[in-house]
Amino acid sequence: MGKRKIETLQRIGDDKARQTTFCKRKRGLIKKAIELSMLCDQLIFLVVFDKEKQRLVEYQSHGEFSAKVVARLVDPSLPSSISHEKYTNLDIPNFALQASDL
Amino acid sequence: MGKRKIETLQRIGDDKARQTTFCKRKRGLIKKAIELSMLCDQLIFLVVFDKEKQRLVEYQSHGEFSAKVVARLVDPSLPSSISHEKYTNLDIPNFALQASDL
Repeated sequence: MGKRKIETLQRIGDDKARQTTFCKRKRGLIKKAIELSMLCDQLIFLVVFDKEKQRLVEYQSHGEFSAKVVARLVDPSLPSSISHEKYTNLDIPNFALQASDL
Repeated sequence: MGKRKIETLQRIGDDKARQTTFCKRKRGLIKKAIELSMLCDQLIFLVVFDKEKQRLVEYQSHGEFSAKVVARLVDPSLPSSISHEKYTNLDIPNFALQASDL
């Protein structure tokens, strides 16, 4: 099966197609996260949660980098000696500029 | 600049090369996360932390899916009506099988 270009970043309407895409992309995302962690010596924590299906996928690069540790780390009341970049889905235009990445 | 095949998943020794790889891959990872979130209607939370440089990158797909919400969600003492998959860097062999993904 070849890749089709993504025209718009909308929720895939068809249940089966969405599920297939989810399985493939979930796997791809975790793989990329592991690679970034190992190549660049980063601690990574990732959670993917399907509200509808109540299905949770958790990846933590290192055992000690748990949800609790992360929650403390991102707490804005902590000393700001740490540089802190934040992104949400609203930032997609900044990431969509390079169409070649798709 | 072309892509070189990754021979081994080891920390990149050269500081500048590691920094370049980090910038590119960080961006790619967030983009993939946004896409997964939007195409498959998922809540996603991602943190990348460089211990050495004390540099934190945080992505949360939706404003309400914060670190605190996530920490509560992954707490193992919660009712297990939620299906819960867990991965760490030790799972890389399971992801490396498909070399074509690189």
